[in-house]
Amino acid sequence: MGKVTSIDGVFLTSLKCISHPKGNVFHAMKKSDPGFNGFGEAYFSTVNCGDIKGWKKHHRMTMNMVVPVGEIRFVIYDDRTESPTKGTFFDICLSQRNYQRLTVPPGVWMCFKGLGNDLNLLLNLADMEHDPEESENMPLGSFAYDWRTQ
Amino acid sequence: MGKVTSIDGVFLTSLKCISHPKGNVFHAMKKSDPGFNGFGEAYFSTVNCGDIKGWKKHHRMTMNMVVPVGEIRFVIYDDRTESPTKGTFFDICLSQRNYQRLTVPPGVWMCFKGLGNDLNLLLNLADMEHDPEESENMPLGSFAYDWRTQ
Repeated sequence: MGKVTSIDGVFLTSLKCISHPKGNVFHAMKKSDPGFNGFGEAYFSTVNCGDIKGWKKHHRMTMNMVVPVGEIRFVIYDDRTESPTKGTFFDICLSQRNYQRLTVPPGVWMCFKGLGNDLNLLLNLADMEHDPEESENMPLGSFAYDWRTQ
Repeated sequence: MGKVTSIDGVFLTSLKCISHPKGNVFHAMKKSDPGFNGFGEAYFSTVNCGDIKGWKKHHRMTMNMVVPVGEIRFVIYDDRTESPTKGTFFDICLSQRNYQRLTVPPGVWMCFKGLGNDLNLLLNLADMEHDPEESENMPLGSFAYDWRTQ
């Protein structure tokens, strides 16, 4: 079962890495896994070292994200009116060393920063196909997360 | 629509890379795409430079494979009794430079070789969860593909 985080509806699921002398296998998601909400689209996003993509909020998409290459810090901010965790941030660094799947429901804000010097790659297994009408963006300074210490 | 190959039921679909100054986005699969046959499991497999994984045949799984990192040569062999392309091989190298999705139906043999000096990573979007009972393996020398020239 997924592990709860400090934001309601956001959770983490540990994933297996299966060692193999010719090259390892890394799990990403099974349809029977916690957080699976149907399949819509799978895509990769890369983020350069030191760059931050976000803030972005999806109105309908549930995201399931895995980082098989490099290291990425995810920050989530909850400003949902009815949420028991309204006003809080959650952050986590994912990589092969901390190989977990991050499940993010619609309605919260997210951004992510590339930490690895080389390629930083995430796979998002989304429950719907990309639709530019269902998401919105805000400038990075909109919410008071202090990136300087990270 | 997917592009047919020299083996019946195996096809390729060109995928988009969307350039972004902070890091590019690479499509993998949408549920409306050719080759999508339902979602069962997504996993990554890596293969070291010069190593070959295979031969392996799935009896029920349809595979959809994408190579976002490195370069991998895939070789497929058709020994299906009823197939119009029985006895033939198909090979293709996939990478970011040749960014296509390879759809492989159940019933044919596949192996793949790592070509990049660093990480060679494939994502398989499979229509069923892993089940060791539905696949079989054969030694690399079982079919007459000449790896020496590759």
